[in-house]
Amino acid sequence: MGYFRANVDKMIGYTPGFQPGAADVVKLNTNENPYPPSPEVLKALGGVSAERLGRYPSPLSDDFRRVAAEVLGVGSENIICTNGGDDLLTIVIRSFCDENRPLAYPSPTYSLYPVLAGLQNCETLEIPFDSEFNLPARLASVDAGLTIVCNPNAPSGTVAAIEELAELAEEIKGVLLIDEAYVDFAEQNCLELVRNFDNVIILRSMSKGYSLAGVRFGFGIAGEKLIEGLRKVKDSYNVDVLAEAAATAAMADQAYFKSNVAKVKAERKRLSDELGNLGFFVYPSQANFVFVKNVSSDIEAAQIYEKLKDENIYVRYWPYAGIADKLRITVGTADQNDRLIEAIKKILAG
Amino acid sequence: MGYFRANVDKMIGYTPGFQPGAADVVKLNTNENPYPPSPEVLKALGGVSAERLGRYPSPLSDDFRRVAAEVLGVGSENIICTNGGDDLLTIVIRSFCDENRPLAYPSPTYSLYPVLAGLQNCETLEIPFDSEFNLPARLASVDAGLTIVCNPNAPSGTVAAIEELAELAEEIKGVLLIDEAYVDFAEQNCLELVRNFDNVIILRSMSKGYSLAGVRFGFGIAGEKLIEGLRKVKDSYNVDVLAEAAATAAMADQAYFKSNVAKVKAERKRLSDELGNLGFFVYPSQANFVFVKNVSSDIEAAQIYEKLKDENIYVRYWPYAGIADKLRITVGTADQNDRLIEAIKKILAG
Repeated sequence: MGYFRANVDKMIGYTPGFQPGAADVVKLNTNENPYPPSPEVLKALGGVSAERLGRYPSPLSDDFRRVAAEVLGVGSENIICTNGGDDLLTIVIRSFCDENRPLAYPSPTYSLYPVLAGLQNCETLEIPFDSEFNLPARLASVDAGLTIVCNPNAPSGTVAAIEELAELAEEIKGVLLIDEAYVDFAEQNCLELVRNFDNVIILRSMSKGYSLAGVRFGFGIAGEKLIEGLRKVKDSYNVDVLAEAAATAAMADQAYFKSNVAKVKAERKRLSDELGNLGFFVYPSQANFVFVKNVSSDIEAAQIYEKLKDENIYVRYWPYAGIADKLRITVGTADQNDRLIEAIKKILAG
Repeated sequence: MGYFRANVDKMIGYTPGFQPGAADVVKLNTNENPYPPSPEVLKALGGVSAERLGRYPSPLSDDFRRVAAEVLGVGSENIICTNGGDDLLTIVIRSFCDENRPLAYPSPTYSLYPVLAGLQNCETLEIPFDSEFNLPARLASVDAGLTIVCNPNAPSGTVAAIEELAELAEEIKGVLLIDEAYVDFAEQNCLELVRNFDNVIILRSMSKGYSLAGVRFGFGIAGEKLIEGLRKVKDSYNVDVLAEAAATAAMADQAYFKSNVAKVKAERKRLSDELGNLGFFVYPSQANFVFVKNVSSDIEAAQIYEKLKDENIYVRYWPYAGIADKLRITVGTADQNDRLIEAIKKILAG
């Protein structure tokens, strides 16, 4: 018997998107926001005293919960704060899954879900999307401890309707987590479902819409009973004072947030149109990235990915069945998107 | 069947030490450092750009590992960085423990260990310390996936010798984690054991000796093979850019660190002597707290705890068998310790 548990031993582990070190790089591979966070964030960080750094943080991030509850129209008791959205994913999988309680999700989706299931040693029930990324009906009938729907989905950027997710919540016996990490760029969200269903958890992230990927701050919204249980599973002090100060300031500055999101959405529209004109099929995206497939020539996605890298432009490519012919491209600034478009034109021209 | 797993459902959860909100409070209940962190920390935080906050952090905290490796005389590949020491405890328990692999530790000790075991649904083998907190010999013969020794131990502040822990590492079949969260205040540490044993992990924290409890930064030191496995179990981005910047600056300023620790140790000596003169038995402490028992009158620990609270002085008291007659008191500044001593004098005088 080795030191590690067998399920951990055999795991490969999650591979984060490559973080290039060079300065002159167009980084469109990990869905970060191309614009900086609200100026209020640096002000708030400057206000954290040395003495405060020496004291343990608020175990439940009270300041953030107060501000977010007001913005979202829910109670503080409906919010759990986490060390990035990934921390919430770990917490829910440890809460609801084990050898006898599988994890279900439509596939392809965020590749961290099966990694976390492997850690928890629970079975995964991967139900394939159809070619248009419609929510598979079969998801409602498999017997899972936890069902996760990433909505908008990664890597496709597509969304399922609120009514479909309400139906799913109604039909399943276990818990439904709707991973809304990208919802700030969408036309609708599922927040209202936590009022009507005691088995729904909404995941939100400050990484994308609020430009705080470096700070690691996510949160869950759910009925009070679920939140109380999840608190027992999280680390006592899972969010630090600096992350809380940054996230609270960003959440409070809704005017900045809205204009930031509007800029990303305008560029997403332009990028989608331009890539369409170049002969790509572009999945309808409600996220801060586009998922595209070259349908006009025989240059493969892997080739485009490699040639873009030669130009210091990084996008995301996975050599996996069903998505190996596609690329996921984060929406950048206007300049970054221009450089990408020019580089792709050159590649397609040979 | 409820939504939560049965082991989670029946858990009570960890209770963090009370964090008083009032300003004029002497807070000696959660073992924070009474002095602020190095001035280099605020400088480093001021140097983190808004743009950097929007990008994901270094998955392995490369800057911190480089600096810590040099200070400690180990390789970067021997270090795993975590969201506080508690995150490392979660990672090791998920790596080495499950229904068939118990967790063993001497008792009483850090009360988070059994909580994390409950989450992982693994058995706990609690081997009692003797009245002088000597390492129990039986720890070597129980068959555990993971053995944890908190050294210096909390809440006693006592230490086991390096040779004893080397013997324990030699004799057990599983992994030995030595929780050195408080070792910065001790006369010796067990770092050398990671060179000689492939089953030893040292836990360190930036919360105590480096005055960064609010920042949540801990790390593990072990052989490369163990570190590689543990990396698969941690969250991809478990440490944020701000926490890494703060911890790196604090670790780099060894001169400040040493003078900070020297001040705490001098006050620990004074506090121990004064409490001894007042009729307390004071366990020999190598941590930043003292564990004491009133042996000169019939005023109980619980009463002293309550009466100190009435004076806005917070220490730690647990109503548990074996320790309900004792108090754990964090070493504060000279002023704070003076206020504590005066208050205790009054309480003992009735």
